[in-house]
Amino acid sequence: MNIDLNCDIGENSGNDEDIMPYITSASIACGFHAGDPATMQATVRLAKRYGVAVGAHPSWKDVEGFGRREMMLPPDEVEALVLYQIGALYAIAKAEDVELHHVKPHGALYNQAAQDRVLANAVAGAVKRFSGDLILVGLAGSRLIKAGIEVGLRVANEGFPDRNYNPDGTLVSRKESNAIIGSSEDVAAHAMQLIRDGVLFAEKHVRVDTLCLHGDHPCAAENAKLIRAML
Amino acid sequence: MNIDLNCDIGENSGNDEDIMPYITSASIACGFHAGDPATMQATVRLAKRYGVAVGAHPSWKDVEGFGRREMMLPPDEVEALVLYQIGALYAIAKAEDVELHHVKPHGALYNQAAQDRVLANAVAGAVKRFSGDLILVGLAGSRLIKAGIEVGLRVANEGFPDRNYNPDGTLVSRKESNAIIGSSEDVAAHAMQLIRDGVLFAEKHVRVDTLCLHGDHPCAAENAKLIRAML
Amino acid sequence: MNIDLNCDIGENSGNDEDIMPYITSASIACGFHAGDPATMQATVRLAKRYGVAVGAHPSWKDVEGFGRREMMLPPDEVEALVLYQIGALYAIAKAEDVELHHVKPHGALYNQAAQDRVLANAVAGAVKRFSGDLILVGLAGSRLIKAGIEVGLRVANEGFPDRNYNPDGTLVSRKESNAIIGSSEDVAAHAMQLIRDGVLFAEKHVRVDTLCLHGDHPCAAENAKLIRAML
Amino acid sequence: MNIDLNCDIGENSGNDEDIMPYITSASIACGFHAGDPATMQATVRLAKRYGVAVGAHPSWKDVEGFGRREMMLPPDEVEALVLYQIGALYAIAKAEDVELHHVKPHGALYNQAAQDRVLANAVAGAVKRFSGDLILVGLAGSRLIKAGIEVGLRVANEGFPDRNYNPDGTLVSRKESNAIIGSSEDVAAHAMQLIRDGVLFAEKHVRVDTLCLHGDHPCAAENAKLIRAML
Repeated sequence: MNIDLNCDIGENSGNDEDIMPYITSASIACGFHAGDPATMQATVRLAKRYGVAVGAHPSWKDVEGFGRREMMLPPDEVEALVLYQIGALYAIAKAEDVELHHVKPHGALYNQAAQDRVLANAVAGAVKRFSGDLILVGLAGSRLIKAGIEVGLRVANEGFPDRNYNPDGTLVSRKESNAIIGSSEDVAAHAMQLIRDGVLFAEKHVRVDTLCLHGDHPCAAENAKLIRAML
Repeated sequence: MNIDLNCDIGENSGNDEDIMPYITSASIACGFHAGDPATMQATVRLAKRYGVAVGAHPSWKDVEGFGRREMMLPPDEVEALVLYQIGALYAIAKAEDVELHHVKPHGALYNQAAQDRVLANAVAGAVKRFSGDLILVGLAGSRLIKAGIEVGLRVANEGFPDRNYNPDGTLVSRKESNAIIGSSEDVAAHAMQLIRDGVLFAEKHVRVDTLCLHGDHPCAAENAKLIRAML
Repeated sequence: MNIDLNCDIGENSGNDEDIMPYITSASIACGFHAGDPATMQATVRLAKRYGVAVGAHPSWKDVEGFGRREMMLPPDEVEALVLYQIGALYAIAKAEDVELHHVKPHGALYNQAAQDRVLANAVAGAVKRFSGDLILVGLAGSRLIKAGIEVGLRVANEGFPDRNYNPDGTLVSRKESNAIIGSSEDVAAHAMQLIRDGVLFAEKHVRVDTLCLHGDHPCAAENAKLIRAML
Repeated sequence: MNIDLNCDIGENSGNDEDIMPYITSASIACGFHAGDPATMQATVRLAKRYGVAVGAHPSWKDVEGFGRREMMLPPDEVEALVLYQIGALYAIAKAEDVELHHVKPHGALYNQAAQDRVLANAVAGAVKRFSGDLILVGLAGSRLIKAGIEVGLRVANEGFPDRNYNPDGTLVSRKESNAIIGSSEDVAAHAMQLIRDGVLFAEKHVRVDTLCLHGDHPCAAENAKLIRAML
């Protein structure tokens, strides 16, 4: 099966070295919810060593809340915020002869852009303005994916093996007790189901292009290993 | 006379709009001592409107101390810090169809790199790794200028019309009462002298390529206007 | 009529000096959403000059989002967060011979504690542990008020003349266009109605003890002046 | 021998639990160079468990530079900065029924106040304004000690067993390779010498009242254990 296996990384989960061998793309925190220049540099080098594609993982500016708190800015400021973070990683990667492969918003920015048209357009516009070669990663079938297509970007519909879904295709909120799937076996089974069946979003069937594994999941490395083995 | 007139900008001095018409290049704060994505975006647009060349103004991470406090990091981390800030501005400028013209370190990073060989090499190396087309701006005749030349970059020897110099070519510290030249007439006269005579640094005579005007000088706009008129 | 007129202050609205003459109590930002030691000191001095009572205005740590973004912490950490901010203001006020009069949470902390029992208990517990003499200010009739009463604190039911209410007694979210009442006349009329009728919260009638005026309302000083004149 | 053994703590050195059993007073970081409300709370509880006296360890606001970078503020702002931090810890300690015992500035604030009369007076004044019962800890014989005595505070002359001294009684800068004494045996021998002979500061002989052990010294716990055994 030809599916991308991605992980949010450079977020001080302590699991980066264990996960990197099993994934195909890494979304690197750019300092707004986690990470700093030195961590980004080390993470790019680690990804390069394993031949893992590197992408930017921009966030609302919210280190305290790990980028999981909603906020809102005018579209112009959203563009500046996203461009700043893409550029920061671009430069660090360039110095290591690594090209950026994709952009995937983080946390609240990701979830809000999955539903808010104006925000989705601002994020997609920022990515396009930086480079038409970047892939925009978003929640499968979401508003952000539509915005990416409209602006002429390649997109990747993302599925979450370690997260439960609501019937409308959004993720069960992390505030709920059943947000996260705990055992690696269940996560792997969910991964297979996502690949086979895709997801329903807003009552439409959507194929999944990339599976996300969370670096802070208690079994992060085990999940990655198991799914990689199955693929 | 063919001399560049630069200003550190995007630092919330409140004077940016008044100064921009009179300068030829702008060094834009990149969020580590001042500035944020939205300010950087607005500043790039302002510079573009007046045809002013845009450069990055990276700093130690020190918003509280406005980047004027010394610190030190290993060379690798210095490179990452400088690359991060260059890239952040590069992306915001790219979205406005503006290319980066130069890099000029800020505050303590500028002063320390004027004297510390290892630090100077790290800064120059970061600039070169990002792009060999960028001009590295440093204190006239300083270690940073030498490092830029050694690594194959074009360099600009900078002089400070509104600052007094020590006999060795370094600037009188801002902790001293005579650090800053107060009246616009004296600043302009000092500018003319710097253009005509250059400066002495480490007992060698050095030509001045670019004059820096501080945006937070009490007569910032008046200084710029007067010097521009003289040139 | 014997009603308190309070304002959130020390938040760099630029209106503090204009509002202070008309209010009877001030809730001072403690550095977590706005403010810093020097601003807190200046604000305490301003309040003292006008004989205005001083209280702490603790917030989630969220300068970027002005404390308006929801987050959650374990009760122990909430207590530490609230105590830290109360103590910080207490010390600055003590040096000016000013005693703390009340504590009123800010923004998301205020709104979440109005509804979440565990959070409300943590906030009320922190206040009580610091001093049983402090008044706890919360949304009229809310969970926070109940928590304050249960722990043995004096409480003040707060009403918002410049904000529209939902039928259940909560405030219309700032994300909605009709969150804020615009004209000073309408704000003043709403103030009179709140004093006369109180509010309905969770289908119970609640008296209003203190009216809050927002320092960042476009007519902040005008609102304060008009309501003060009416009282 | 009746001498205090203190340690800077709550700075995420990872050594706090190992050191606490051997010291008699702890200076707790207050969030400006390290620490946050939850860490402060945990550290106060740890100190209480071992019967260790608790003091505030205020710093310039400089998380990035760990409070080791010099800055300067007007005396009024220094007072506000110190009061803010003392009060924050006071409140957290009060909730645990723990009283503050002393105040000891951190890093650059400590070193600058050892020499700068205006700064020393501002720090001592802030402590006195908060409470005349607090002990002011400063470099043995330094300007800060004098300022504390002049304002009527009890003071503690501090010596550093794990640091080398300059002939004038100041500490060898951390920028120098011989700043820190490496082996626990040498540290312990230096401790004994400091107790026996005191230090020379500005050509005057000064008795040492308290010995400081750094929590981030590679042998922090070993040093504490050895010195405690010797006393």
